[in-house]
This record gives sequence, structure tokens and C-alpha cells, in this order.
Amino acid sequence: MTERRITGNDIEQMDKRYRAAFINSLSGVKSANLIGTCQRRGYFENLAIVSSVVHIGAHPPLLGMIMRPHTVTRDTLENIQQTGIYTINHVSEAHTLAAHQTSARYPAQVSEFEAAGLTPWYADDFDAPFVKSCPVKLAMKLAEIIPVEINNTQLVIGEVTSVWIDDKAITATGQVDLDTLGVAAVTGLDTYHSLQRVGRYPYAKP
Amino acid sequence: MTERRITGNDIEQMDKRYRAAFINSLSGVKSANLIGTCQRRGYFENLAIVSSVVHIGAHPPLLGMIMRPHTVTRDTLENIQQTGIYTINHVSEAHTLAAHQTSARYPAQVSEFEAAGLTPWYADDFDAPFVKSCPVKLAMKLAEIIPVEINNTQLVIGEVTSVWIDDKAITATGQVDLDTLGVAAVTGLDTYHSLQRVGRYPYAKP
Repeated sequence: MTERRITGNDIEQMDKRYRAAFINSLSGVKSANLIGTCQRRGYFENLAIVSSVVHIGAHPPLLGMIMRPHTVTRDTLENIQQTGIYTINHVSEAHTLAAHQTSARYPAQVSEFEAAGLTPWYADDFDAPFVKSCPVKLAMKLAEIIPVEINNTQLVIGEVTSVWIDDKAITATGQVDLDTLGVAAVTGLDTYHSLQRVGRYPYAKP
Repeated sequence: MTERRITGNDIEQMDKRYRAAFINSLSGVKSANLIGTCQRRGYFENLAIVSSVVHIGAHPPLLGMIMRPHTVTRDTLENIQQTGIYTINHVSEAHTLAAHQTSARYPAQVSEFEAAGLTPWYADDFDAPFVKSCPVKLAMKLAEIIPVEINNTQLVIGEVTSVWIDDKAITATGQVDLDTLGVAAVTGLDTYHSLQRVGRYPYAKP
């Protein structure tokens, strides 16, 4: 193999920012999601890019995300705890730069929607803001926050209560064609990608 | 908008398999990782594709994954609990079909390496099997298993103790070029993609 081995000790010796970029690359390809919250409908809106959204289960429909209490996502987490609701919005290829900009450390009173040039949109019966331009929009109801004590992070689990999506992208089997919707992927901390389909395979049998 | 709203009640009414495919699409683009385990070095090897690997933290370097005790990953989870070690291997575009095949329900005594035509490789000082052809190989030491009681799943957290990678793919800032390594992404339950870079952006500032 032409590969080099990087040991735990090598990782420990890395410069802090270098290590953050390196380790953030090791989980592989990630989703680029914008989390929309507010203090009350239309007021003190927050928008934060998150790459840790993960499938928890289909029935009930649950998604999780890892949040660090003391980072830029703090306002987001506080809003989720106080209102019990949030939105998950899939970033499209066309809006990766705007989405990335929401990771800047804005003061609490600044709306990242405005700062990044993204337009909020509200459903009649749901009081957290969606990102109008995102091709998949999920209304989420907080289900549980599980502390991950080993490094002081939290697994925030929510239930999908509504989905806004172009239904032409939903196949006969229920699978969503995220590539044709132009949904972007992220690797590491700063690199965004579009998807080229390699294959769709049948349910695997021995 | 041309979007349709799908409500929680619509989701509840879906056929079970359709709902599984639909909800598994909603977390967005995911990593395609092969988890390698064994009962002891070289014996009773197991290999399972997992799309729920998530970044937990960089210091210490921690990755999590969501596992369901009563599925095909059961042998994998038992091996992890008994040996305290496992490997995470990034699937490349060239091997997505073989990787997908590991999701079939083989009897416990069958090695998914053999069944899928993937070659195991061992490091001198680490007793869990890697997938030789994968461009990123991580040696993992179990750190903690956190029960997610809401749907009887588990968040399995491990520490990265070694990485095997072509170091030409590591940039000056520590970011790994997963796209040039040919690492694949997965969406939903059955669709695999290669990555086309849209942009790499500087650290965002207000």
C-alpha cells in the first residue's frame, strides 16, 4: 500500500486547527443542513449549518444531530430547548457559499438569514423558520436531548412532523432522488460537493 | 413553490418499506462506511455497511454510529462489545456494489468479506480486520455505548487510534480530499454517488 499510518499520538501532536480539519474529514461524506430556529415566530431568527444530522429511525421518523453547547450553534440549541421546534433544510449546490457563511460567529441579535442572504419562509401552522430556497424542508419537533458526557456534546433527537418536497423526486419505492434535487454534500469543515450517481442497487440477499 | 407537503399522518400511513426508504432519505447525503470486526484475529470476521457514522469531536478524536441491536449489524455490535475494537473503512466508488452486498442477512458463520468479495487486511498490532481496498481505514477503540431509548437503538462511540491514508490526500490545513480519493456517498437505502467539488471556502467571518 502507498498509505501512511497516522497514529493516535500523531493526532495528539497536531496543531488544534489542523487536527479539527483532519478529524472532521474522517467521518466521510456528510449532509449539509441548515437548522432554522427563532425565539418566537418571526423574531430573533437563527440559522446554523450543521453536518452531523443522522438517521435514528423510520417509525417514528426520528433524526438526530450532534451539537456542542459552547459554539455558534448555542443560540440554535437554546431556541430548540425553549420552543421545542426547529427546521432542517437541505442545502442545494447553488447555495453552499451562503450556507457556509452561517457558520460565522455573529452576535446573538443578528439573523443569519439576513447575514447570509437566505430568505426565511413560514408554514401557517409551524412557528420555526424554513429556508425558502432549500429543496427539502423538514418541520421538526424536539423529542429528546441525550448528553454525550465523554466530550460535553449533546445528541439532539427530533421527530419529523412535516416534509416539503417536490414529489416528482420521490420514487415509487419511497426513496428520494436527492441528486436530481441538487442537494449538496460536505466533507471536512469547508468543502462542498454535488452528487453523481454511481448506482442504485436492489435489496441485498445472500 | 411546486413542493408538496407530506404530513406526519401521511408518514404514519405509509407502507413499512416505503416509509423506511423515504425517511432514510431525509437525513441527506451520508457516508458509506464498512465496519470490520471479528471474534478474534482472523476468526469469525464480520463486515457491515453503515451510513450513520457521525463526527462527535476532534480532541479526543471521536466518531459515533447509530446501531440497531436486532438487525444484521447484531454480530458487528456483539463483536465490538466483546473485543472493544473495530475498523471503519471508507467505501470507494469502485466498490459500492460489493459494499452494498454486506447488508444481506448472512448467517453468523458467514464472513461478509468472502461473501462480498472484499479482502481483509490486518495491521501488526490491531486485531480487527480492515478492508484492504478502502482508501481510508480507521482503527477504532470503543469508548462508550449510549442507549437511545426512544426507539431502542444505540449510539456507539469510538476513539480513532490510527488512520491509514495516502498522505498526498491530506492538504496543508489538515483537510482530507475525500473526492480525489474516490470516496463514495450514499443516499437513502440503496443509492451511491461519487463527489464533484462545488467549492472550498475560507473560515467564515461576520
